[in-house]
Amino acid sequence: MSNYTKTTVLSEASRTELHDVLNLTGAEVSINNMPAGTAVPFVHYHKHNEEIYGIISGKGTITLDGETIELNAGDWLRVAPEAKRQIAAAADSPISFICIQAKAGSLEGFSMTDGVV
Amino acid sequence: MSNYTKTTVLSEASRTELHDVLNLTGAEVSINNMPAGTAVPFVHYHKHNEEIYGIISGKGTITLDGETIELNAGDWLRVAPEAKRQIAAAADSPISFICIQAKAGSLEGFSMTDGVV
Repeated sequence: MSNYTKTTVLSEASRTELHDVLNLTGAEVSINNMPAGTAVPFVHYHKHNEEIYGIISGKGTITLDGETIELNAGDWLRVAPEAKRQIAAAADSPISFICIQAKAGSLEGFSMTDGVV
Repeated sequence: MSNYTKTTVLSEASRTELHDVLNLTGAEVSINNMPAGTAVPFVHYHKHNEEIYGIISGKGTITLDGETIELNAGDWLRVAPEAKRQIAAAADSPISFICIQAKAGSLEGFSMTDGVV
């Protein structure tokens, strides 16, 4: 059995979810492209998963429990499971971002404590 | 206490690790920029973590248990913990990529089964 899975994400796709395509078991990853002036049409939170957002290009905002935070390319955020969140592109710019879901508290070691050279 | 953490990653940094900066608990995320003609100078594998690689720009290769796979912008891969891996930029192109570590088998639900609207 192959020890890897691979896919190519089209840059024009509005949302691409990788969990099922790559057979992920430790995280879900989505790649998102939102046009200027659009927002995710609902507020949501999570039961168990932290979310990690990385802004690849463009700009926008994320509202967390009523606080609105500016987002620009290069910004990375951890959002706690219980935070009520809603992301939006800027009025005058699209936004492209990655969103990672992973179970809060699940990482036991990493890099030097999990990697073996 | 704030329900989020945020940082800005400099696009010229060779490697930025987010775990400690963002207080991540479910994954480690690194943003990597390698110049043309360079490679990670060692082969490694993991005890428990799957790795998810996403190529943001440029091109290169990853060698997995001796098999060399071409990498281009938009490619995403899951690499099993036990696979012996080494990533390199192309001879004529830099490569920028994201690497996510998460414990294999740790994700219990996601999106519709973990998210609440």
